[in-house]
Amino acid sequence: MNIKGFTYSAVAASIKYQDRLDLGLIFSEEPCVTAGVFTTNQVKAAPVLIDIERLKEGKAQAILVNSGCANACTGDEGRKNALITSRLVSQSLGIPDDTVQLSSTGVIGEQLNVSAFKQHVSELADGLSADNFEKVAEAIMTTDTVTKTAYTSVLIGGKEVKLAGMAKGSGMIMPNMATMLAFVVTDAEIGFPELHRSLLFNVEKTFNRITVDGDTSTNDMVLVMASGKADNPWIDSDSPENQLIFQEALGDILKDLALQIVADGEGATKCITIRVCGAKENNEAEKVARTIATSNLVKTAFFGEDANWGRIMGAIGRSGVRIYQERVDIAFGDVLIVKNGLFLGKKAEEAATEVLKQKQFSVCVDLKDGAGCEEIHTCDFSLDYVKINADYRS
Amino acid sequence: MNIKGFTYSAVAASIKYQDRLDLGLIFSEEPCVTAGVFTTNQVKAAPVLIDIERLKEGKAQAILVNSGCANACTGDEGRKNALITSRLVSQSLGIPDDTVQLSSTGVIGEQLNVSAFKQHVSELADGLSADNFEKVAEAIMTTDTVTKTAYTSVLIGGKEVKLAGMAKGSGMIMPNMATMLAFVVTDAEIGFPELHRSLLFNVEKTFNRITVDGDTSTNDMVLVMASGKADNPWIDSDSPENQLIFQEALGDILKDLALQIVADGEGATKCITIRVCGAKENNEAEKVARTIATSNLVKTAFFGEDANWGRIMGAIGRSGVRIYQERVDIAFGDVLIVKNGLFLGKKAEEAATEVLKQKQFSVCVDLKDGAGCEEIHTCDFSLDYVKINADYRS
Repeated sequence: MNIKGFTYSAVAASIKYQDRLDLGLIFSEEPCVTAGVFTTNQVKAAPVLIDIERLKEGKAQAILVNSGCANACTGDEGRKNALITSRLVSQSLGIPDDTVQLSSTGVIGEQLNVSAFKQHVSELADGLSADNFEKVAEAIMTTDTVTKTAYTSVLIGGKEVKLAGMAKGSGMIMPNMATMLAFVVTDAEIGFPELHRSLLFNVEKTFNRITVDGDTSTNDMVLVMASGKADNPWIDSDSPENQLIFQEALGDILKDLALQIVADGEGATKCITIRVCGAKENNEAEKVARTIATSNLVKTAFFGEDANWGRIMGAIGRSGVRIYQERVDIAFGDVLIVKNGLFLGKKAEEAATEVLKQKQFSVCVDLKDGAGCEEIHTCDFSLDYVKINADYRS
Repeated sequence: MNIKGFTYSAVAASIKYQDRLDLGLIFSEEPCVTAGVFTTNQVKAAPVLIDIERLKEGKAQAILVNSGCANACTGDEGRKNALITSRLVSQSLGIPDDTVQLSSTGVIGEQLNVSAFKQHVSELADGLSADNFEKVAEAIMTTDTVTKTAYTSVLIGGKEVKLAGMAKGSGMIMPNMATMLAFVVTDAEIGFPELHRSLLFNVEKTFNRITVDGDTSTNDMVLVMASGKADNPWIDSDSPENQLIFQEALGDILKDLALQIVADGEGATKCITIRVCGAKENNEAEKVARTIATSNLVKTAFFGEDANWGRIMGAIGRSGVRIYQERVDIAFGDVLIVKNGLFLGKKAEEAATEVLKQKQFSVCVDLKDGAGCEEIHTCDFSLDYVKINADYRS
């Protein structure tokens, strides 16, 4: 899908490994409205710190992203290196330095291989093309097994507005906020406050509703660039209905990417939605859902296709939310297995076990104590998660 | 070690599996001072609820414990079944019903196999002997691979006071409070308030300082029975120094058992102490230590013997405690690998990797922001954890 105003490029720069795409560039013909959300981890990588400063004006023209090195916990040298890479890009493209957003992913604590950038940035700039979106999505992969992209378009004031998104991430995933990298480009004509608000609203509803392993990375970010080339009526506070259309389209992209991240969670074999209803408040529903979704015991049982509702009860009970055990219902998919706190017997368990054999299913918990409802998306916890993370650096 | 006033018995009652000890009894000749601490999980097993009611007077004479079934989430029927087993014991022993403490461990949500109790409780009572302490420790095992017992004695007012403890546990371990079963018997002559206070103080410093998988069980409890047969000067508020001696002896037993539980954590191959110093307050040090100790990414790196300090930094950064990244030191054993937030290089990493090859080591983090210091004991996260928990019920 061609998003007016943007081109892309990716090269194999041997930042850490040979012969794989590891350096990507997203470029806007003109400086454009850009909003970002960054990791809540106090330990922030050098590129994250630089991006936050540069985004104060809500403008950017390029995103340079590498895999193979996080450039986190690298001190003054890390910052200096990040600025060098930014300068390489701004010089190649002939744009101001502070319109370049930087993004890195990989091992924490190693210094950036700056010579790889020096050798490859001009090649990267030369390769810019509207056709390379998927190649950049490939360049940002680390333990990801598939690229993650999503596309949509909407009509705003009779004009087609397009959005394209990419993401990576599979370990260190428990957004609170982001937890991975995601970049969205759109040709929408939109003000910064509206773009930023749309992003915050949707990140909360999408990336902040997934979990793979309960960890939060030092490098996470979501960036959205809007080129304004769609020629749509300006989206601002005077056009609430247009704003809503755009916000929903952005939400679709981010939710699609978020679910792709869960499905490709490190070692994941299943994608599970934990839906909690009947809580006093939405935030209590979220707390219960999150406790279930991050329990290793629950997630290993999913992997084992074991309808072990007792572990779900255990997680509900330690969530910190006041619950009434004798009211709790638990269902796997459509199969109710616990009613009013009690097990419905072997037949229900057998039917539930069939649900667990699917690649994708939901677990619904009804607390019967109010109207609060929330869902969290998670994956199972397999042998491969441990293998991947015990060997990650070797 | 013979603790005056107590006898023990264990039998294979086929509660769930054949031919393994699964039913145990601890008996005091006379009703004795007893203190307990129970799970903080809101979903509490039937025996836990009964014990809490019965312990209001601080007295008990017997503990009946089974493995193979947790009798949790079993509703009215579960409670009725628990009371039947209690009655079987009180009748066999000729003691009041409400002096029997009950304890169960195993799968949540299955009803207790009462007929197994009916068939075996009299045999159990007949088998009581001062020599069977270790046999009871065997009967309470579930996924434990070894029995866990600890013994000590101290002089109080020139008299020898003995303590013996047993524990089980290896999954669903993240005490806040208990997280497993532990029973301690002593012949000390001691008042209930002093016994209870000693227990609370020490549980906080021992069982509440270990973590295997971040889950909290529905059945956890620590019970301490004091027969008063040691003939020591009465331990009460008039004898603070005697109280301190006793408290430290109980602490030794509980810490010993707690570390045995971590070492036998499900799938654990290593036992690691996370020590955090230099926090503003002790509770902030604890929060940071606990975040590191429960991170799956950190624990899988321990399993892989990978000195991946970046993941430790990541955990520190998301702990919720305000830290100064540029001050943080991290050491594996005696090997400093991060100083003032920066990596000390490949040589340090190689030396740290040697430390990680040990079965037992510590990770020390200095935040250099105050005098707060705490430690948490954890284990690594191996392939076997997932295997055990994916297959647990099959």
